Amino acid sequence: MSIKKYTIGTPFVTDATVKEVKAENSIREYISVKENTIELTFPLSPDDIIYGLGEQLGGINKRGRKYRSFCSDDPCHTEDKEALYGAHNFFVLSGKDNFGIFIDFPGEIHWDMGFSKEDEISIVITGTDADIYEISGESEMEIVKEFRDLIGKSYLPPMWAFGYQQSRWSYPNKEQIDRIVKGYEDADIPLDTVYLDIDYMDNFKDFTVNEEAFPDFKEYVATLKKKGIRLIPIIDAGVKCEDGYDVYDEGVENNHFCKDRNGDDFKAAVWPGICCFPDYLKPESRKWFGDKFLTLTEKGIEGFWIDMNEPALFFSMERFKKAVDYVKKYNGEDLNCWDFFSYRDQFSNLSNNNEDYKNMHHLDGKVSHYDVHNLYGYMMMRGVSESLPKDSLLFSRASYIGSHRYGGIWTGDNTSWWSHILLNLRMLPSLNMCGFIYTGADCGGFNGNASRELVIRWMQLSVFTPLFRNHSAIGTRDQEAFAFSDSDEFKRVIQVRYRLIPYLYDLAKKCCDNNELMFKPLGFEYKDKLSKECDDQLLLGEEIMIAPIYEQNKSGRTVYLPEEMTFYKLSGNKVTHKEKLSQGIHYVDVALDEVPLFVRKGKTVPLCAPAKNVDSLDKTVTEYLEG
Amino acid sequence: MSIKKYTIGTPFVTDATVKEVKAENSIREYISVKENTIELTFPLSPDDIIYGLGEQLGGINKRGRKYRSFCSDDPCHTEDKEALYGAHNFFVLSGKDNFGIFIDFPGEIHWDMGFSKEDEISIVITGTDADIYEISGESEMEIVKEFRDLIGKSYLPPMWAFGYQQSRWSYPNKEQIDRIVKGYEDADIPLDTVYLDIDYMDNFKDFTVNEEAFPDFKEYVATLKKKGIRLIPIIDAGVKCEDGYDVYDEGVENNHFCKDRNGDDFKAAVWPGICCFPDYLKPESRKWFGDKFLTLTEKGIEGFWIDMNEPALFFSMERFKKAVDYVKKYNGEDLNCWDFFSYRDQFSNLSNNNEDYKNMHHLDGKVSHYDVHNLYGYMMMRGVSESLPKDSLLFSRASYIGSHRYGGIWTGDNTSWWSHILLNLRMLPSLNMCGFIYTGADCGGFNGNASRELVIRWMQLSVFTPLFRNHSAIGTRDQEAFAFSDSDEFKRVIQVRYRLIPYLYDLAKKCCDNNELMFKPLGFEYKDKLSKECDDQLLLGEEIMIAPIYEQNKSGRTVYLPEEMTFYKLSGNKVTHKEKLSQGIHYVDVALDEVPLFVRKGKTVPLCAPAKNVDSLDKTVTEYLEG
Repeated sequence: MSIKKYTIGTPFVTDATVKEVKAENSIREYISVKENTIELTFPLSPDDIIYGLGEQLGGINKRGRKYRSFCSDDPCHTEDKEALYGAHNFFVLSGKDNFGIFIDFPGEIHWDMGFSKEDEISIVITGTDADIYEISGESEMEIVKEFRDLIGKSYLPPMWAFGYQQSRWSYPNKEQIDRIVKGYEDADIPLDTVYLDIDYMDNFKDFTVNEEAFPDFKEYVATLKKKGIRLIPIIDAGVKCEDGYDVYDEGVENNHFCKDRNGDDFKAAVWPGICCFPDYLKPESRKWFGDKFLTLTEKGIEGFWIDMNEPALFFSMERFKKAVDYVKKYNGEDLNCWDFFSYRDQFSNLSNNNEDYKNMHHLDGKVSHYDVHNLYGYMMMRGVSESLPKDSLLFSRASYIGSHRYGGIWTGDNTSWWSHILLNLRMLPSLNMCGFIYTGADCGGFNGNASRELVIRWMQLSVFTPLFRNHSAIGTRDQEAFAFSDSDEFKRVIQVRYRLIPYLYDLAKKCCDNNELMFKPLGFEYKDKLSKECDDQLLLGEEIMIAPIYEQNKSGRTVYLPEEMTFYKLSGNKVTHKEKLSQGIHYVDVALDEVPLFVRKGKTVPLCAPAKNVDSLDKTVTEYLEG
Repeated sequence: MSIKKYTIGTPFVTDATVKEVKAENSIREYISVKENTIELTFPLSPDDIIYGLGEQLGGINKRGRKYRSFCSDDPCHTEDKEALYGAHNFFVLSGKDNFGIFIDFPGEIHWDMGFSKEDEISIVITGTDADIYEISGESEMEIVKEFRDLIGKSYLPPMWAFGYQQSRWSYPNKEQIDRIVKGYEDADIPLDTVYLDIDYMDNFKDFTVNEEAFPDFKEYVATLKKKGIRLIPIIDAGVKCEDGYDVYDEGVENNHFCKDRNGDDFKAAVWPGICCFPDYLKPESRKWFGDKFLTLTEKGIEGFWIDMNEPALFFSMERFKKAVDYVKKYNGEDLNCWDFFSYRDQFSNLSNNNEDYKNMHHLDGKVSHYDVHNLYGYMMMRGVSESLPKDSLLFSRASYIGSHRYGGIWTGDNTSWWSHILLNLRMLPSLNMCGFIYTGADCGGFNGNASRELVIRWMQLSVFTPLFRNHSAIGTRDQEAFAFSDSDEFKRVIQVRYRLIPYLYDLAKKCCDNNELMFKPLGFEYKDKLSKECDDQLLLGEEIMIAPIYEQNKSGRTVYLPEEMTFYKLSGNKVTHKEKLSQGIHYVDVALDEVPLFVRKGKTVPLCAPAKNVDSLDKTVTEYLEG
């Protein structure tokens, strides 16, 4: 077990790691330093498996695809996408050789993991300054633990954040939230939080609350709290440019905002319109912004989600005007289709464009944003975390390794697609490896319309993920647990979550304390071929194997047991099925109101009784599931 | 077994059916005629399965989703899309009740197949004139056969069209095609055709051949034919507006083009720029256009693919100018994000827009295109088919039930996604039910970059589909069978296809002659739950069950056998594995160079020896696979 560090050039200090590792005097043969890049090349043997890379598409085995480290606000998570919201530059190669690689570099990295050549990993770092860590160990788990020790202890939220949570873009006012709370009360379905998406604010201005929509916000927060329900507001990365808006005025006055190439405050538009962007890379600026959250904690708020911090940029006026000028030159002639595409793309290419990222500057103009892009969400979360009271809930959309110490992440704007249940499952172990323990996907899918069956099947996975939040986008079908027919079926699934909370919370805490994984690929513990290739089942802790149903119109699924296990189905407060199953492949039936799980031989899973929320949960064990 | 026909209003004559059925005197209770629509409502029992709907997303069971009949050029086939290129208004309900419904209506139809309400089918026909056929029968198969008898005998191409085919957008000149042919020759991989996508033409003008790219086209066609390779050119629906271009001039002169609302020729832009659109709904115009194909058959061409015939419309000048005027009004002020979205959408919403479809008119201005939209590709193929020599290859992108008598279809611009292998598989039985026997997907995926593993795994399905064509888009990675490392593995898979061709061709012919399905859901023959829910295996003819691998980084898969079968793996000219497997779930290993198939008990599959193309194929049986 060892960590070797190879420092090339003068890397930007990211604080991703917490342990001092002395750089080696020479670099390894797999690293080549080119004029503008650093490249890493590793051979791949036919049976080698690649684990890691955190929030990325693809299977649990990341082999055979290309990826890109560049925090991206891309709401369409199709199979071919190379980058999502996080940049998690750690992978484990498992096979003939076993080692881990962490590239501490805050800019763009291209990963070709056996795509262009089946027998080669080829990584291009778009810069000449980076720390590269090589971690060796006896097993995949040893490598991961060593890496996690290097990057420091993962964030754990308070236990109530393990309750069932309801969100939507948006519940814009008190009446809507009352309707949601009443919906859950009437259906007798547990609920711990309701989320406030962007519309609760006054014109999307951070730290404002629309007073018409929430006449006495502080009192309203207290009223809900009495019911055991916490309100969780969103805060976006950008600050609306509006004279007289205190956050903007202070930011300008105290030089807290990123600069453009001319040294003026950098401006681009997001939800509030034209915004400035706090320079979270400056300690005093991220503290200033973090302290602003106290205006909301003073009103009783105990948790936040922070968003748009890749940062997403819809457009800059500078580039929008160029697009308009381009269109204005149109002289009335008939167009060919390429000219047409070029007019069209003037506008469609404006968002999240590298030209804007290159014009944005940090540290009083000294550093181009493009070069440190992947730190922005991380440093925002760091500032917020350092200001918030201990035991606050905090999670972010954008992230880098290092941010796992300050909060959780959710996996962004997924879609109500069946394949996204599987994507959710496959991402969990990779995220855990990169330090993110408090994590989960938008259950039921954010974009698009969900069917009843999709939402309830998705819940059968989400009952196991630390963040269990139902969230959906504006204009889509209602997907709250009470919005469909026969809400009792939803209730019985969500109740299983509450029965598991003491177990899940203890497990998550252990994983944070001891650098363990909550979700492990089967291949981490079983070395047979089917386990190593298994892509739709996970080990949860030391006790459980999960195998949710992720296909439409199915009453069950096949599941592979690497050893004898006991198959349980839980529904509401009942165990509806218990069956010892032998090593091998089995077909199991799972009704919509059941949660399937497999307890490993000799292991025990404690259950408590369900409750209407975590505050009222009696953690006394009422039953054990024996393996 | 019976067919009942309910005629509402005065339906547009589509010629979808070939059998005279007398309309009933009264309509059924599930049909309601509203002011502007006709609506159909059916209850769904929990175990009911919905088959059919042809070229659509979703599972083999179409339940739990929404669909739209409206031929659509949409190149991004994500799970949520409601319409693709074809409009196939036939489904079979299987369960408590068993019946089939065919809606002969050429406009837009909305299908809610148990999505909004789990226990209800709700169909909205956007017009008040339609023929609705209700087909009853003892079994799903009986209903399908009855329906197929109603709509007439399916198209079957010549046997060489069952060979392996290579396409790309584009091989624009002789040199590129020579390179491809040589690539296959050098790798000793069989090949029957090479496709010409739009760039072979002179400025995308139908029936022209760029003379610089192909100095003596007729001779070149003959040269390739001597090698057993046929060139298959594309022809698009739109005709470039260019004075002096004979097709355009004739079309104008003889009133062959669709009109706009003012009675002028309707114009919109596609690849050639501004185009006119032959009115394929006029018999004389579709004959005129069909006869033009003879200018190419005279040069030795024996097959065509016809495209862009939904019709795709990139933009009309009228609406483009409106978008420009909108942008020109921009006054320099800072924008909010909604204003920005509205500028952006001015251009992104121009393509395939209903405003243009409503402005386009058929039959000398008498019929709005929007109302008969789904007939356009159908009537184009009909005209072409009626002009072409017998035994020509012909297939289309857009289609309606009825076009199955005139040619095949390919399933349009899919993507190099693993999930699209499964989509390809799931569509096959639905397409067969709607009459399309000669069909297949772009093997390896059209859009996006394919990995070696994806292409070869996809081929393991495509070896069974009548149309077996590797096709990919401009700007993507080369995906010819010789473009990857160790092309011998590709060769061994493609050779299996040639061994199967006599069997597959006979089967396809039988299916055309007897209104049978080439590909059947397991649930059509086996009535156990696992068969009825099986979504990733198919029955092929009476003899074979297929179960391809459709996931990355897998060395095999689980497969369900509804009864004892014999599992074979074929590779090149060899049977590499034969094993009797019992009823139940099995895991089977399949290497990249093997084709897995299961022969049903008591059945026999004949194989011949592989060949370099179909012309040189010796159809003598060399071996039987026994079940």
